[in-house]
Amino acid sequence: MKKHNYSAGPSILPAPVLKEAAKAVANYQNSGLSLLELSHRGPEFTAIMEEANALLRELLELPDGYHTLWLTGGASTQFFMAPMNLLDDAQTAAYTDTGTWANKAIKEAKAFGNVEVVASSKADNYTHIPKKFKMHKNAAYLHFTSNNTIYGTQWHKFPKVDAPLVCDMSSDFLSRPFDVKPFGLIYAGAQKNLGPAGVTSVIVREDMLGKVQRHLPSMLDYRTFIKEDSLYNTPPVFPIYVSLLTMRWIKKNGGLKGIQRRNKAKAALLYNELDQNPLFRGVCAKEDRSLMNPCFVMAEGYTQLEKEFSKLCEENGIVGLKGHRSVGGFRASMYNGMPKSSVQVLVDLMQDFAKRKA
Amino acid sequence: MKKHNYSAGPSILPAPVLKEAAKAVANYQNSGLSLLELSHRGPEFTAIMEEANALLRELLELPDGYHTLWLTGGASTQFFMAPMNLLDDAQTAAYTDTGTWANKAIKEAKAFGNVEVVASSKADNYTHIPKKFKMHKNAAYLHFTSNNTIYGTQWHKFPKVDAPLVCDMSSDFLSRPFDVKPFGLIYAGAQKNLGPAGVTSVIVREDMLGKVQRHLPSMLDYRTFIKEDSLYNTPPVFPIYVSLLTMRWIKKNGGLKGIQRRNKAKAALLYNELDQNPLFRGVCAKEDRSLMNPCFVMAEGYTQLEKEFSKLCEENGIVGLKGHRSVGGFRASMYNGMPKSSVQVLVDLMQDFAKRKA
Repeated sequence: MKKHNYSAGPSILPAPVLKEAAKAVANYQNSGLSLLELSHRGPEFTAIMEEANALLRELLELPDGYHTLWLTGGASTQFFMAPMNLLDDAQTAAYTDTGTWANKAIKEAKAFGNVEVVASSKADNYTHIPKKFKMHKNAAYLHFTSNNTIYGTQWHKFPKVDAPLVCDMSSDFLSRPFDVKPFGLIYAGAQKNLGPAGVTSVIVREDMLGKVQRHLPSMLDYRTFIKEDSLYNTPPVFPIYVSLLTMRWIKKNGGLKGIQRRNKAKAALLYNELDQNPLFRGVCAKEDRSLMNPCFVMAEGYTQLEKEFSKLCEENGIVGLKGHRSVGGFRASMYNGMPKSSVQVLVDLMQDFAKRKA
Repeated sequence: MKKHNYSAGPSILPAPVLKEAAKAVANYQNSGLSLLELSHRGPEFTAIMEEANALLRELLELPDGYHTLWLTGGASTQFFMAPMNLLDDAQTAAYTDTGTWANKAIKEAKAFGNVEVVASSKADNYTHIPKKFKMHKNAAYLHFTSNNTIYGTQWHKFPKVDAPLVCDMSSDFLSRPFDVKPFGLIYAGAQKNLGPAGVTSVIVREDMLGKVQRHLPSMLDYRTFIKEDSLYNTPPVFPIYVSLLTMRWIKKNGGLKGIQRRNKAKAALLYNELDQNPLFRGVCAKEDRSLMNPCFVMAEGYTQLEKEFSKLCEENGIVGLKGHRSVGGFRASMYNGMPKSSVQVLVDLMQDFAKRKA
């Protein structure tokens, strides 16, 4: 049975990417060797790294002064590594609080300097993006989470402030074009739109660095990765290679503009259904709805049908539709790799269910 | 042409492991989904983690009190994370200096407490293991590098001291049985004997932890990984799975005793040839020779033949035989995954070369 993978991450990757990745594990470019056993200093992986960096620069239209780095440890590592590199003990950083991941970033940052939460939608259970806020005057940066996987909200317009932006873009990285110039640092765990778990893409503007006084271990200093082109130590070879395959696929499919069109069409299909179907209800403010992780619940009067609908989905090959364990309901994660046809399968099931139950 | 992969890491993995890994990327256990797109909280990966932990415990015969953790960032991250977790500012840790990696560990540790180098073979260009040394009386631990990839030496008997041992076992982990009880902490980047690049195996004894006063970010605190069974954040799913496949293969091949027999036989084959062949010369003290990374050079009078021999190897499918860029010569890394038949190919070439040139 054809599977439709709505997992929140690790999550669906484009089918041709998976096919090519499997081939590389068996025999990389007919070298007689697996990609997994190639030296990270050999010509094959050197070519992979160079192309990955070049393609990321091209897709994001990165100006000079920005570096593309490949780290490990996910966004959870960046939660402390960003303030450790950018925020001195006596300085203040501004943070926005839009949910679970934003909160973890805030918690880790507090150990390195003053943290001022300048905006929060906590009081409304994170169902919208707090757009009006008073920025701290001398903040070293403003941190925000561009897409909130658990609550299903997304910043459709980025905050406009004088301070450089620092962004956890894990769950909507490379899903849409944007102007990188207001950003001092962007980080993204790969395992949503880019690749498998095991690599973190970091984009940092050179002028952000070298301003803190504290000791930085080599592996926690962005400058180490800049200096050594992310090859100070052995990088996660396979996750980087699969990320390169995804970037090639994005380029082939119209770049970030093309991907955004696809993602908008998929989201529109599902949100339109949510707004029309009497059995279901989207949980977020319409203007802040995430294109990546639509979250919804059974409408009032139909909550007893949740299990039955879950079972129906399962029987039709739909996987990973369950909401995050902390919020419940449904979450239909539809990252870059998900085809519109899979969204259509879900929408058809919702319509059919409504005909029988409404 | 059949390839014989002597790369120092990332390096050869057992052929059946690579085959199974490729299958999992294409379609994991006929689930219709790639392993790369499975949720790390789903039943499939939960089973993988549980089996990986159980198998590692079984292979190493781990007593209670030891935890098996799966991190990222390689040994280079453990160089600072170990002292950060185990060494308070005013305490002293003893370190042995047996080469490049030991030195990096020393350098990173110095930021967290007093570091006393109690033994070094630097004066002899690291061609042997310094076995007699005066241990610091109240050291929090003794750190050593069990196998020195670059210089081709190996601790065949581990240091006997009162302090707990902390060991970088990256390049001979799971290549031989040993008594774990003197160890407080063991860490190993997977990309030699265990799996692909992208995961670090950490074994820690519970009583080592919770003794330092400094702040530890969540992702740098071993206790976070213990508490959450290495699932505090998204772990490197694919590298962990391939490591599990290798451990299954080790178990099937006689466990660590069986693997050690294989590794001894391979090393004996090559070292015997080095000792007999007039064209070549092993560079390390015989009693400290590494079973993993035999290092050798052309013998006196034959140095001009190095390029010709390199070319001959290349023409016969031998890959990665070049010594580390910092020392030159040859290095024949023969980790767990290398079959004896590949070592025979190299030895035959050496013999043939000697017949023609000596």
